[in-house]
Amino acid sequence: MKSSGRRRRPNRMRVAFQGELGAYSQLAVHQLLGERVELLPCAQFRAVFEAVAEGQAEAAVIPIENSLHGSVHENYDHLLEFGLAIVGETQVRISHNLIAHPEVRLRNVRRVFSHPVALNQCLRFFAAHPELERVPFYDTAGSVKMLMEQGLRDAAAIASSAAAETYGARILRRAIEDDRANFTRFFLLRRDGEQRLRRVKEWKTTLAFSTRNIPGALFRALSAFALRDINLSKIESRPLRGRPWEYLFYVDFLGHVDEPRCRRALEHLGELADTLKVLGCYPKGA
Amino acid sequence: MKSSGRRRRPNRMRVAFQGELGAYSQLAVHQLLGERVELLPCAQFRAVFEAVAEGQAEAAVIPIENSLHGSVHENYDHLLEFGLAIVGETQVRISHNLIAHPEVRLRNVRRVFSHPVALNQCLRFFAAHPELERVPFYDTAGSVKMLMEQGLRDAAAIASSAAAETYGARILRRAIEDDRANFTRFFLLRRDGEQRLRRVKEWKTTLAFSTRNIPGALFRALSAFALRDINLSKIESRPLRGRPWEYLFYVDFLGHVDEPRCRRALEHLGELADTLKVLGCYPKGA
Repeated sequence: MKSSGRRRRPNRMRVAFQGELGAYSQLAVHQLLGERVELLPCAQFRAVFEAVAEGQAEAAVIPIENSLHGSVHENYDHLLEFGLAIVGETQVRISHNLIAHPEVRLRNVRRVFSHPVALNQCLRFFAAHPELERVPFYDTAGSVKMLMEQGLRDAAAIASSAAAETYGARILRRAIEDDRANFTRFFLLRRDGEQRLRRVKEWKTTLAFSTRNIPGALFRALSAFALRDINLSKIESRPLRGRPWEYLFYVDFLGHVDEPRCRRALEHLGELADTLKVLGCYPKGA
Repeated sequence: MKSSGRRRRPNRMRVAFQGELGAYSQLAVHQLLGERVELLPCAQFRAVFEAVAEGQAEAAVIPIENSLHGSVHENYDHLLEFGLAIVGETQVRISHNLIAHPEVRLRNVRRVFSHPVALNQCLRFFAAHPELERVPFYDTAGSVKMLMEQGLRDAAAIASSAAAETYGARILRRAIEDDRANFTRFFLLRRDGEQRLRRVKEWKTTLAFSTRNIPGALFRALSAFALRDINLSKIESRPLRGRPWEYLFYVDFLGHVDEPRCRRALEHLGELADTLKVLGCYPKGA
């Protein structure tokens, strides 16, 4: 875990996320909590969970699924292990920008640094600029940090607009990604996640359950929701490794655990599933 | 698309996959088709599909889901767009090896090149060897190719055992990944995928369908299988972007489309879903 490089401000909420300052996760932090937070960047997802579990941070923001790359199973594993509660969600559009030192213009750029996944998501841009060499780097925002620290005048990076702002760099080209339908969904986590049923537009609940055998078992499990007209907004199965024929399911439904029909559905599901864990109950994101 | 660098052998099946020679996908090619194939490495997933659609390759092997990172939605998109058929499946354990020039020993190594995802999956190894600098590279197998071409004597790479063999490099440490439960499932694709119902241990069918609305709709859709005692081995929902409340579902079930109960289940599902497409029917992998 690295220090955010800012003065500790005791009256601001301290929020852990994975990546360098300026990472896409930081955009999610601001969407969920505004600008007046203290940021705690962590190198690994596990360290993000540890920071909240051990009290170094009051909240955490983690990616849970991406529209192109699927669910981040690792973070579901950490949710089950650490027992933090999901208390909010948001979606961030992953829009890549070409970023350089403020004195650099596109004609000066020879090398472009970024995470290989980001480089591969901007192939049309590189096809239109065959003179640019792609150089893999460990992190998107980290590549902006590096070229500013080293004062590189022949290089650019691909990263979020927040990275340009964080390191005082300049955006040379906006939105150079090939696919605009690249969204990541993030969860806001806290140690104590109990959320009273209050008036919000819509509540959402995320849970994980396991069954020993899929055929009738999943169908019966879903009856707990369908027979009570509860809408699911996500379902995903995941084989439990080393235990053939056992499956873990991730389900999101629309509703609050304290609504009577939802409480009864969870009781009903509890009878049908081998294990059941509510991971959080939170206002549905936009 | 790059040439495999081998002589064209007209009597061998030509198989496209994404990555450099020695990529983890190549292990899946050999598990599915044996060693006597001609390899066609492609830079992008789309190019893999194009190679088969346009006849440069007779078959393709693509990753579809990973036990840590979830489903590769991009490849589901290509399956729907290109209309290739899934005719086989296999699982590969992603085991990372430290690989170097044959004359290099671990004590000579100062820098370790690999894709950032692979570097991040070997953190225990790096914690035990703090003297090693991690250097991000665009590809796992590509990093072995590069250090052999440049004859680097102070560097190693992290990649598959196939990469060491392909480039004549030496494995210094085997299985240095943190998590042994890292598996990727691959599909074998052909242009003409019709598979007659013949005696294999078990058949599997993969399909995609969409419904306008989840609550009762998914439950009803699954009744087509549950009421006929057909086992599902995977289910996953994916929101259709820009069309709120419409969902795409990926389902794998155990059975062959020509079995009467499966044919009837698909007819039944066709009545309930807005769209339905069978992506392939293939012998279940080990």
